[in-house]
Amino acid sequence: MSKPIRLAVIGAGSAQFSLGLVRDLCLADSLAGSTVVLMDLDEQRLATTTALARRYAGELGKHLTFAKTTSRETALEGAGFVINTALAGGHRREEAERALVQSCGYYRGLYPSESGFYQYDLMLQVARDIERICPDAWLIQSSNPVYDGVTLITRETRVKTVGLCHGPFGGIREIAKVLGLDYEEITFEAPGVNHCVWLTSFRYRGEDVYPLLDRWIAEQSEDYWRHWTPKFHDTQMSPAAIHMYKLFGLLPLGDASRAIWTDAWWYNQDLESKRRWWGPEGGFDSEIGWQRYLDHLTEDLKALATAAADPKAKLTELFPPRTSGEQIVPIIDALHNDRRGNFIVNVRNDGAIDSIPDNVAVEVRAVVDGRGIRPLRTPRLPDLVMLGAIWPQILVMERRLAAFKTRDPRFFLQYLLFEHRTRSLEHAEETLAAILHMPGNERMLAHFEARA
Amino acid sequence: MSKPIRLAVIGAGSAQFSLGLVRDLCLADSLAGSTVVLMDLDEQRLATTTALARRYAGELGKHLTFAKTTSRETALEGAGFVINTALAGGHRREEAERALVQSCGYYRGLYPSESGFYQYDLMLQVARDIERICPDAWLIQSSNPVYDGVTLITRETRVKTVGLCHGPFGGIREIAKVLGLDYEEITFEAPGVNHCVWLTSFRYRGEDVYPLLDRWIAEQSEDYWRHWTPKFHDTQMSPAAIHMYKLFGLLPLGDASRAIWTDAWWYNQDLESKRRWWGPEGGFDSEIGWQRYLDHLTEDLKALATAAADPKAKLTELFPPRTSGEQIVPIIDALHNDRRGNFIVNVRNDGAIDSIPDNVAVEVRAVVDGRGIRPLRTPRLPDLVMLGAIWPQILVMERRLAAFKTRDPRFFLQYLLFEHRTRSLEHAEETLAAILHMPGNERMLAHFEARA
Repeated sequence: MSKPIRLAVIGAGSAQFSLGLVRDLCLADSLAGSTVVLMDLDEQRLATTTALARRYAGELGKHLTFAKTTSRETALEGAGFVINTALAGGHRREEAERALVQSCGYYRGLYPSESGFYQYDLMLQVARDIERICPDAWLIQSSNPVYDGVTLITRETRVKTVGLCHGPFGGIREIAKVLGLDYEEITFEAPGVNHCVWLTSFRYRGEDVYPLLDRWIAEQSEDYWRHWTPKFHDTQMSPAAIHMYKLFGLLPLGDASRAIWTDAWWYNQDLESKRRWWGPEGGFDSEIGWQRYLDHLTEDLKALATAAADPKAKLTELFPPRTSGEQIVPIIDALHNDRRGNFIVNVRNDGAIDSIPDNVAVEVRAVVDGRGIRPLRTPRLPDLVMLGAIWPQILVMERRLAAFKTRDPRFFLQYLLFEHRTRSLEHAEETLAAILHMPGNERMLAHFEARA
Repeated sequence: MSKPIRLAVIGAGSAQFSLGLVRDLCLADSLAGSTVVLMDLDEQRLATTTALARRYAGELGKHLTFAKTTSRETALEGAGFVINTALAGGHRREEAERALVQSCGYYRGLYPSESGFYQYDLMLQVARDIERICPDAWLIQSSNPVYDGVTLITRETRVKTVGLCHGPFGGIREIAKVLGLDYEEITFEAPGVNHCVWLTSFRYRGEDVYPLLDRWIAEQSEDYWRHWTPKFHDTQMSPAAIHMYKLFGLLPLGDASRAIWTDAWWYNQDLESKRRWWGPEGGFDSEIGWQRYLDHLTEDLKALATAAADPKAKLTELFPPRTSGEQIVPIIDALHNDRRGNFIVNVRNDGAIDSIPDNVAVEVRAVVDGRGIRPLRTPRLPDLVMLGAIWPQILVMERRLAAFKTRDPRFFLQYLLFEHRTRSLEHAEETLAAILHMPGNERMLAHFEARA
């Protein structure tokens, strides 16, 4: 039954991510005997992660082979699957750029991920290396921005690419908990673009859930919010999400309930407005919520470092062998072992969702098996969603990608001019100059200056 | 040679417009013998206009028959051509709505034409009447907003529709004057959507004009603007137009140089910024420029009223019989008498301009003859223009038309939320409520309240 793969993980130094992946691999018997090549530029984090991965598989008596390398080219040699989870420069670089942009008058910075340059550049480099070194491999784009990234990669290369995000499922779990439904009996469709997806169909034991939601809103939501003490990631049943439902006619799912697409400025004007919409801490993306998220990552990392330092610690106790619910390993299994399953994927549209251009990455349900990834043909989203959320997102992405591809900074200036918080032409020009001349952004500046 | 038509003019009470039209008709020998039915709700203005029209044709000894009616249905009976030049409620209604919106914090109101409701409603009623009464007639949509109007009419009816605007030609004349070129030897293409068109090709005696323009900008523009005392309509060679050229890579033509599309907010923040970009009076659309435009209309009207009151006045002296340069009569002649010519028209795209949706009205060059209007297949506009001007205009138009068609005010709220000057969700909601409850807007309010 088992048919091993060779899997390269780019940016494997994130121990949480890699160990989660290894756990799922250990539990997938049909992938037994596989080789995982962990690649990262940070040798120390890479060594720790690799050691933990070996121990974890060893504790479970699973036959997986691990290799580590700081060379992307080496990692890709012979790979059948590549996961790109890298964040160029890490959270530190991202936070530095956000702080700079915030100092220019943009509360909590720009979406998505500030200039985007280093991520676009890295994503494209990885994809181009795959094209050259292991052209038949599947690329699973896991780090953000998935939407821009999958669009860019599928325009510029011929690599088989899928973007995966855990966003939608957490949202469904939260709805189930609040409405008192059994998660296993919910089915849904939530097409759109990554982080901007909408529940077009939502069923529980064959019945539409929307009337239940409407009743909850009418009868219980106010009371619920009065006693609400949400964790940073509890945004699905927030006043923001329910307001978006009223405004757009469909409930936004998962990360979409964070309203982190660029144009939903009216929820995100300052901490005060974020508190109104996402509770006392202002949700995932306020300075409070985001710090909790970063702290959460740091704590997890500390626990893993402690375990790594103690050869007697049982990793399987710290990190019990249960499948994570992430789609990465199951989709590899489906593709590699021809085990048909259905998934929520980010792929080049090519007609999957009606009225979205072919060459834009969409998030959509797909049947996956040995034939590949086949998205379900999905009807046009309602006009309130298309005109108020999807099209604005497409324009933002296009301006950002055009700036990157053409090296013409006027596209980035245009992106800033259409940012609701920009106060004048000079404000946009000064912000652009500040980003381009930020210490650490020298390569980005050179990229734009190298325009023919 | 002559093949008369029956032409209905809706909104004919505008004496300037109607007399201009009659003059061109008098000069078109191939349309001799035609009947012009002038229709307006204002009986007095209609009577004056009709009398002037008869006198003008009489002075020239031309055989044209004039009828007048306050009934649209009567006007349309047997018509082969219909010109809709009506402005619902007139400038007075438009100014009242603009003043209200300005009091809500939107300097100089919203574009285009505030709520748009009454114009959309009237345009569609006219088109539906044509469908019923004279289904083979050509509708020439002459009043604004031409872009929204032609899009709406061609989506909702099967009427043969063309929108005409004099905008582009005045712009070319102004460029010719400033650069010292002979207007007759200029050829150009300026595709886009009405009031947002861009010189993709611009030739003088077979040579590209752009290098001449670049030289003028580098060597003469500063000096030109220092001594510049523009009239309200002199916007083509303004600092705004040249800045747009730098920002978008193409020169905006005619009305496009007024930057009156909704999203060019950075030129239009207040009178101060308008003065910076369009000279001492702030251009066509400042409170000063627009008042001059309205005064200009009033003065013209006074001169005509004086002439009308004096049966001995020679109208042909006041209004010499020279062709106006407007496209209306020539295009009627081309369609009716199969005299092939080329025109700049606003028609349903249907693939004419690459990458603009089929069901959006575009402004494009077309060959016109007895076969109808055949637009030239036009390449995709550059991305700087598509992403920075055309697509934002499409989204604005779609939100406004969706509000009108679905009666769902959330589309209008969305339009306001995406207006750069909107300060908060409440600001958008309050502005929407103010517009809907403005005295005089009762029918609009009822339209939205009648939503099923």
